[in-house]
Order: sequence, then C-alpha cells, then structure tokens
Amino acid sequence: MEQRLSVFCLGTGDMARARRFYEGLLGWTPQQTEGITAYYLGGMMLAIAEHGELAADAALGAQAPAAGYRGFTLAHNVASEEEVDALLTLVEKEGSTYGAQLVKKATRAPWGGYSGYFTDPDGNAWEVCFNPFWPLDEAGRIKI
Amino acid sequence: MEQRLSVFCLGTGDMARARRFYEGLLGWTPQQTEGITAYYLGGMMLAIAEHGELAADAALGAQAPAAGYRGFTLAHNVASEEEVDALLTLVEKEGSTYGAQLVKKATRAPWGGYSGYFTDPDGNAWEVCFNPFWPLDEAGRIKI
Repeated sequence: MEQRLSVFCLGTGDMARARRFYEGLLGWTPQQTEGITAYYLGGMMLAIAEHGELAADAALGAQAPAAGYRGFTLAHNVASEEEVDALLTLVEKEGSTYGAQLVKKATRAPWGGYSGYFTDPDGNAWEVCFNPFWPLDEAGRIKI
Repeated sequence: MEQRLSVFCLGTGDMARARRFYEGLLGWTPQQTEGITAYYLGGMMLAIAEHGELAADAALGAQAPAAGYRGFTLAHNVASEEEVDALLTLVEKEGSTYGAQLVKKATRAPWGGYSGYFTDPDGNAWEVCFNPFWPLDEAGRIKI
C-alpha cells in the first residue's frame, strides 16, 4: 500500500453550517458541492459528508460522535509563531459567528513548536502550529 | 487560512501495535519515531500519538474514543477496481495478524466509484477506493 492519504472524510451534523465555517471563516473554495462538499488540499481532498451518510457508507453505526476527544486532531501548520497568533486571534474574534471556538491559546511546546487549538462547528479539534523541524515549501506543503 | 492540511494526528491505544500495522501490513516507513510516530505522505504527515497525550495536547478529555463511527473515515485511493480488490484481499488474508479487519467488501457506489472498508487496530475506518472522477498523478496524488 503506497504511503499516502487521498481523502480525509469528515462527518458533519449540518452541511450548511460546515460550509459557512470552511468558506466564510477560513476562506476556502470547494472543488465539489454535490452530495459531499470537497475541498482540494493539494494532492488530497477534505470531503465533508453528513454523519449518517458517511457512517452508512463505512457500514458503521450512524450516531453522531460524542463531544470531546475523538481520537484525532487536524493540524494546519504555518511558517511562524506570528502566523499562529494571527490565525488564532481571527478565530477568537470571529469564530463564534461560524460555530468555531478557541479551546487552547498558543503555547510553546516542550518539543520546540508553538501551537494552539480551536474546534470547528462539529466539535473537531484543529491545531494551528509552527513546527520549526518540519519546514514548509512555497505551496505550504511539508518538505522533508 | 490557506487551503491545506499539514498533519493528521491519529490517536492510538498501543503504539507498538499501530506501528506493526503501518509498517508490517501496509509497508510504510516512518519519518520520525521519537515521541510520536510520523509517516510522510507527500506534503503532509500522518502522526500517530498515544490517546492520552493527543487529548491532553488538545486540552480535551483523555478517554479513548468509542468503537464504531467516530465522525471520520480515511480514504486511500488507487488507480483501478483491480487494485481495490487486491488491497482488500491482502487485508482479509493477513490483516488479523496486525489487528486490521475487513468491514465492508468492495461494492460499486451509486456515484460511480468502487470501494470497500477495513478498520485498523485502533478501530479507525479506512476506505480503499477507485474514484474515476478524481484521477491520480504518477505519485498517487489527486490531480484536479
């Protein structure tokens, strides 16, 4: 199995609210809006689907996930500590309009990074992170 | 906020078991094995962390996620229906050694794709999918 992730499929309880968050607050542009909503993230897709449809497709129970920790977080890395602060400040100031919430202010981590967290309207944890050990190329992709 | 995902951080209840799954069954090579285990997926990272550490880092409750649907699935797209069948057959035959389990045999979807699902040793749902509308480049990345 080749070493890649093609699509991260994320369930939502309210597609219109999810789209307002991604497109309104984050400023993203969807690649597809029929059935699922897909955002192209450079080589892979973030696909948003209604919880019931995603669970059924995977042949799993259809209940929405519980609040709190869900076994994963999503990290959006940026090129400096200043960019971490700027993005978390945006979420703190304007996030409530879109159902997003700052849950952890940025702190310097023991391993040398600088990051904080917010939750999206479905309660998923997003980390905004500056990681000096994983530099980004011009397109914002991690280069090794 | 630029349109990208830098790190997908996935919690595990047993790091050694998780590594046997990724490295033994899937054949992946880690980029980092100290603290977290990180696999480079071409521009982004899959980072495996112990549940408690990941939850604490995100300032969320530390319990392991419940079995069943967790609000997300991970898709590994391949270039043909034959490749879907081959990968799911591998999981069906050898997965139990690594804690992986076939949960849905490949079916043709109403939207035109062909896919099935397996779960990893932590119970996360992985879809193996041929999507004729999202072609892959030579490196296996979705091109639009």
